[in-house]
Amino acid sequence: MSSLTFNSYGKSKVRLTKVVRNGARHTLFEINADIQLQGDFADSYLKADNRKVVATDTIKNTVYVVAKEQSFATVEDFAVILANHFVRTYSHVSSATVELTQSAWARIDDHDHSFVDAGSMKRLARATATMTSCSLTGGVIDLAVLKTTASEWKDFHSDRYRTLKDTSDRILATKVNAEWTYATTSGDFESRYQAITSAMLRAFATNHSVSAQQTITHLGEAALAACAEIELIHLELPNLHRIPFNLEPFGLKFENDIFVATDEPHGLIKGTLSRK
Amino acid sequence: MSSLTFNSYGKSKVRLTKVVRNGARHTLFEINADIQLQGDFADSYLKADNRKVVATDTIKNTVYVVAKEQSFATVEDFAVILANHFVRTYSHVSSATVELTQSAWARIDDHDHSFVDAGSMKRLARATATMTSCSLTGGVIDLAVLKTTASEWKDFHSDRYRTLKDTSDRILATKVNAEWTYATTSGDFESRYQAITSAMLRAFATNHSVSAQQTITHLGEAALAACAEIELIHLELPNLHRIPFNLEPFGLKFENDIFVATDEPHGLIKGTLSRK
Amino acid sequence: MSSLTFNSYGKSKVRLTKVVRNGARHTLFEINADIQLQGDFADSYLKADNRKVVATDTIKNTVYVVAKEQSFATVEDFAVILANHFVRTYSHVSSATVELTQSAWARIDDHDHSFVDAGSMKRLARATATMTSCSLTGGVIDLAVLKTTASEWKDFHSDRYRTLKDTSDRILATKVNAEWTYATTSGDFESRYQAITSAMLRAFATNHSVSAQQTITHLGEAALAACAEIELIHLELPNLHRIPFNLEPFGLKFENDIFVATDEPHGLIKGTLSRK
Amino acid sequence: MSSLTFNSYGKSKVRLTKVVRNGARHTLFEINADIQLQGDFADSYLKADNRKVVATDTIKNTVYVVAKEQSFATVEDFAVILANHFVRTYSHVSSATVELTQSAWARIDDHDHSFVDAGSMKRLARATATMTSCSLTGGVIDLAVLKTTASEWKDFHSDRYRTLKDTSDRILATKVNAEWTYATTSGDFESRYQAITSAMLRAFATNHSVSAQQTITHLGEAALAACAEIELIHLELPNLHRIPFNLEPFGLKFENDIFVATDEPHGLIKGTLSRK
Repeated sequence: MSSLTFNSYGKSKVRLTKVVRNGARHTLFEINADIQLQGDFADSYLKADNRKVVATDTIKNTVYVVAKEQSFATVEDFAVILANHFVRTYSHVSSATVELTQSAWARIDDHDHSFVDAGSMKRLARATATMTSCSLTGGVIDLAVLKTTASEWKDFHSDRYRTLKDTSDRILATKVNAEWTYATTSGDFESRYQAITSAMLRAFATNHSVSAQQTITHLGEAALAACAEIELIHLELPNLHRIPFNLEPFGLKFENDIFVATDEPHGLIKGTLSRK
Repeated sequence: MSSLTFNSYGKSKVRLTKVVRNGARHTLFEINADIQLQGDFADSYLKADNRKVVATDTIKNTVYVVAKEQSFATVEDFAVILANHFVRTYSHVSSATVELTQSAWARIDDHDHSFVDAGSMKRLARATATMTSCSLTGGVIDLAVLKTTASEWKDFHSDRYRTLKDTSDRILATKVNAEWTYATTSGDFESRYQAITSAMLRAFATNHSVSAQQTITHLGEAALAACAEIELIHLELPNLHRIPFNLEPFGLKFENDIFVATDEPHGLIKGTLSRK
Repeated sequence: MSSLTFNSYGKSKVRLTKVVRNGARHTLFEINADIQLQGDFADSYLKADNRKVVATDTIKNTVYVVAKEQSFATVEDFAVILANHFVRTYSHVSSATVELTQSAWARIDDHDHSFVDAGSMKRLARATATMTSCSLTGGVIDLAVLKTTASEWKDFHSDRYRTLKDTSDRILATKVNAEWTYATTSGDFESRYQAITSAMLRAFATNHSVSAQQTITHLGEAALAACAEIELIHLELPNLHRIPFNLEPFGLKFENDIFVATDEPHGLIKGTLSRK
Repeated sequence: MSSLTFNSYGKSKVRLTKVVRNGARHTLFEINADIQLQGDFADSYLKADNRKVVATDTIKNTVYVVAKEQSFATVEDFAVILANHFVRTYSHVSSATVELTQSAWARIDDHDHSFVDAGSMKRLARATATMTSCSLTGGVIDLAVLKTTASEWKDFHSDRYRTLKDTSDRILATKVNAEWTYATTSGDFESRYQAITSAMLRAFATNHSVSAQQTITHLGEAALAACAEIELIHLELPNLHRIPFNLEPFGLKFENDIFVATDEPHGLIKGTLSRK
């Protein structure tokens, strides 16, 4: 005998393109939506009774219809609108989580309606609504950065399993994955996102790093300083190693110049910084 | 001012191949390892002090060295050995999580040392150890299954946002993602894994399905019935829609025969079944 | 000033699922189609005149309609039917190439309508038709195989750039990519495909290999011997290195047991064998 | 009986990071190299004789050693240097093809040694050398662009298989894949690459498009006009459809604003433009 102790369902990879036409000047949103609902759905799991289930196809339709009916300036705003929509429309939905990721496009030569890929990072907005509250998380996914010097890795733990030598000059390459908790669900999220990501890029560029762990602190503190409306930031940094190529067998000298780029294995460093 | 409220680090995508040579008959393990450590590491984030940090390169070495020094029959056993190794070797590590995924290989015509791809699913083993305990999760990732009939989707919620019609005969295609909690860290995990996955495949094949939600219950109950040593199973099923192709414009009739296969968007149905 | 010296267009990633219902026993085809047409289309490139262009959306529709109207036993047959369809339907199409790849599904316990992933390899069929002829290529894509011994790599070229040592016992892991030219567009392609792939698997398993180059010859000769209707086979084998893990720093001995699995960099060995 | 009618081999996914330190100002190259050699290698396929085979591991070493020993300003220069190296070093190598792809990095706020992802497109350089000649191809891979208007698709072929309606206002989204043949293997490839890609972006942005076919001509002619040293350009454009979402069931009107973004199926349009 068993019991159903958790359930949730929804639609993933709903891909919305919305064009806002302010005269000749167009604004482009390219958004991927993942939505999960919780509520009074156990009968569909246990009693073959689907009557309360909002089909995932219906959830998908809702993304497009709400995108049409509501105006929004940012993906953060749209996440809040959508999450609230689900709990307000269906009384048996106790909680709705809407996770949106937005692709980066830049105008070609400031053109009104033509755009080019602005990087493989994604902007993240995740809202969770109940009937009485809505929380909002912002973030950035896979923001690739690399510095060719001003990064060390030395004086770390030694034992039988260690083979890596100390280095006071290495490449630090990572993809910044960061999520921050907003203290509000309204206001100017565009400025906040730009302030936070710019501050993290600047902190990455200009701080000397003695470890990826320390770099997390640099990025997190810069983000908290850049935006008063965030309370907490969680960072996950893969350490995408550039390994010195062994030039000795060829009678050559490594001068921090020739590296083997790798994706696997990679370090993965995590940390959460909270405003005191 | 900020404080570090969480930290963890480790190595991901450590790819181990181990060959066990029982005379001419070889056993092959191909394993991906992701390892995360928690403990007394705040000084590396906050004080530029790396002395307690076991380098992720050292963690990587450990995977290979322990694989050499210890014999194990299954990936579940190896996960337990490795997780315990980290907390027992480093007194300042409070918790170690080792997540292993194993590729599926089958012998070519029962050959002693030659193997062929046996499917894209992965076998999962995740152990978390502290100094006083070790928990073990087993699982399977992306076990693709499809049934061409005996699947319905009807009598679900209707409202303004619904456009999908009822159907009493559809294709059900999914990739089973399941994790189950073992009540033990020893015993015959090979038989258990085979019993659980075989039971889920049989349940998928032979049960009439009125929803992906109900299919979760079918799979979960079959797994719990097949293995007394698991207490709980969590399932996540993407609903990988095969959409009827609209043949009407061509003067033809859809007879549950011609479908458009899609990956996105997809439903995502989750549920946890616990033994009472 | 410029001239258009080549043009071609079509639809890619057309994903068809076809279910053939022989009473309770269902046959499943899951096929990806890529189609390219050549013909009298220059005016669409050069003169803004689309009148002769069969839209790629129309090409996509055609895949589903022809799949409905025509019965076929194999993906090779369907490729020939489709390629001929395009050149016979559109007099201004001089040549049509239809490339189909089929996913591998196996019945669950010989069930009538339930299937499970049978490996990540794909079956390939590519037909190119003109008004007067049709050629057919069969193949297999990414058939992953691995042998844990009976593979050497030694006595190869030495010079300043070599660092790799001779070995008389290594793992050989690859994904077989093979294409073969059929001398016919009719007959029993199911038996032929099974004969060719089984022969290659057997050849991989049972032949001692002194190089991936030699393995290409083993596989190619086995394929040619297994099927009289193929004239030529082209093979491309990535050499997916399993690198001995250096156990020396830990006071341990490598005994062909502990390896680092890698995808990159990889060798890539190509060869074409033709029937004399 | 069979004969070996073609052979070639080499190393793929050789991932080089090279840092050039001009004082504090660093230049970063992140390059993926795929290398194939042809020559007198049949004995390794047919006679178990590896003596002439330059191991793929040796080929890999060569990439790093030549990167160390030679200075180069662009990936095009490095491709030429490497391809020539192989044919000049090994008299039994009749031809060497070196294909390099370079990741796009931009300085963070013009910083001396810190970089950020500048888009997912790759820069391509492919050189093929024999003892007597060297040819060079440049290119760009997957340069994603999108325009929200000034794109039509109408007045195309109609027949039984057509269901798509004419439209005079659609989104055009593609990833530009272009290869061009250089008439020279020396000179300022940085300026040429920038001139060609800028010209294509501008042509995409500013030309009204009546078909993806016509857009190929726009891009190709712009490239040929922008750089006198290229003789020919081959373009392949996937048509990554943004499909109008059907708002009618919800009592709403489509106003070129709400679209479903898709990757599959996609059109694939190819064309080659040559300088007269």
